[in-house]
Amino acid sequence: MRVLAFLDGTLADPDAAHIRVDDLGLMRGDGVFETVLVADGKPRELRPHLDRLARSASMLDLPEPDDEAWQRVVRTVIDNWTGGGEFALKLVYTRGIEGDPEARPTAYAMGLPIGEKVIRARTEGVAVVTLDRGIAPDLAERAPWLLLGAKSLSYGINMAAVREADRRGASDVIFTATDGSVLEGPTSNVVLARGRTLYTPPATIGILPGTTQAAVFRGAEHAGWTTKIEPLHADELAGADGLFLASSVRKLTRVHTLDGKALPDSSEIHAELAAAYESVYA
Amino acid sequence: MRVLAFLDGTLADPDAAHIRVDDLGLMRGDGVFETVLVADGKPRELRPHLDRLARSASMLDLPEPDDEAWQRVVRTVIDNWTGGGEFALKLVYTRGIEGDPEARPTAYAMGLPIGEKVIRARTEGVAVVTLDRGIAPDLAERAPWLLLGAKSLSYGINMAAVREADRRGASDVIFTATDGSVLEGPTSNVVLARGRTLYTPPATIGILPGTTQAAVFRGAEHAGWTTKIEPLHADELAGADGLFLASSVRKLTRVHTLDGKALPDSSEIHAELAAAYESVYA
Repeated sequence: MRVLAFLDGTLADPDAAHIRVDDLGLMRGDGVFETVLVADGKPRELRPHLDRLARSASMLDLPEPDDEAWQRVVRTVIDNWTGGGEFALKLVYTRGIEGDPEARPTAYAMGLPIGEKVIRARTEGVAVVTLDRGIAPDLAERAPWLLLGAKSLSYGINMAAVREADRRGASDVIFTATDGSVLEGPTSNVVLARGRTLYTPPATIGILPGTTQAAVFRGAEHAGWTTKIEPLHADELAGADGLFLASSVRKLTRVHTLDGKALPDSSEIHAELAAAYESVYA
Repeated sequence: MRVLAFLDGTLADPDAAHIRVDDLGLMRGDGVFETVLVADGKPRELRPHLDRLARSASMLDLPEPDDEAWQRVVRTVIDNWTGGGEFALKLVYTRGIEGDPEARPTAYAMGLPIGEKVIRARTEGVAVVTLDRGIAPDLAERAPWLLLGAKSLSYGINMAAVREADRRGASDVIFTATDGSVLEGPTSNVVLARGRTLYTPPATIGILPGTTQAAVFRGAEHAGWTTKIEPLHADELAGADGLFLASSVRKLTRVHTLDGKALPDSSEIHAELAAAYESVYA
């Protein structure tokens, strides 16, 4: 099942057409989005997701999102969801119709089932390749017009990177900067475990601040882990005790293979961290 | 007026909704497009535009566009256009609905009037700022997953760059590479005149091969100019005899101001080159 609601609260048929061909979200990838995990009727990390939506919107000079309206529409979708216990909730916010003098954004929330591939990735882990993102780690601060770190609808590169991973026999990607810095996955953040410490790179290098990564870190700290947000180098990935991708719908996913080489088994660390993450919502 | 036709030839109301919220063109900027100038009922550079559409589609691993169907739908829009003598014709081709097992692309052509701002730019020229695109000139060949040189729907950066230009009191942008190489405009190619020679950078550095730039070059060669496709450095821009942006709808636009400094008057060169360009279609 799927549930679609527009920001004004109107429920709509997700199989019908609702968007004009000249919506700038479509014509120019000119808009922002979020994907929230809903589990047992509760949206996880909704506050950080809505904060990040507002941050992305600001980076794109979109009108400030109406936070209360977004909270209401999230509730509307959840209240109308009669599917399984967990689902993905997408929030989409575009610049609206090209040339509209009133500049009304297009805004909707949609509940979607979680695909089998995602469920499998959660339990089995994933093979990942590193791919050059072609940018320096200081670029985001130097050139804000490149929208690095905005969750924009212009995700064509991210999708192309996943297809490249597929060609290389993997299913996901870790982007690296020109100096070898670890950036992020196309739809995830990188988390590395070494001893009892978790690491993730800082958002200032031009990546999305991770909502799930932050939740994992909170849960892990509670379970006695140390957490550090600091630059990581691609050379450090293979030698870690555990390498993970954090994303809302896939939660914390174990990377079992990196650039074609099997990594040391991190199943136990993964189980502990996955439990620490779930404990945040217990 | 506007005319909308889908690739199967169906005419549709451009003010109605035709696109689903889960179209990947919208959700992920996952698709390609072209903008063709139609003048006196004839599409200009249609062959190069359709070739480029196919090239972009291939870079995004989209199904090969049905060339004859695109030619037909272009004809359909033109035949139904009752507006002025010149209009913009957009071709849009997306990956279609997420999860569609038949993977049918969304494909349409739309005729749109040419805005006043464009008409003004054609006659008065534009103020331009150079902005760092943050990439090395060899990146496109090294990292095809970055889709450099594909005309994809993920144009968020290009739109953000134009807003940055606006903040700096200009109306357009010339992107530069990390080594100072001249790349392209967000929706145009850079053409530089020095003596009786025209220059534009090669597409291999990760930019779109220009349909209008190529037409200008053909016309100019016919009028006795030499043309060269070779790397240009940002330092060369201000000292040229003429600096221009070439794009389908704006044609050859004179840059009168670069990074806040007035450039030498290139009106005469512009008039000659504009005439040479028009002569291609005479």
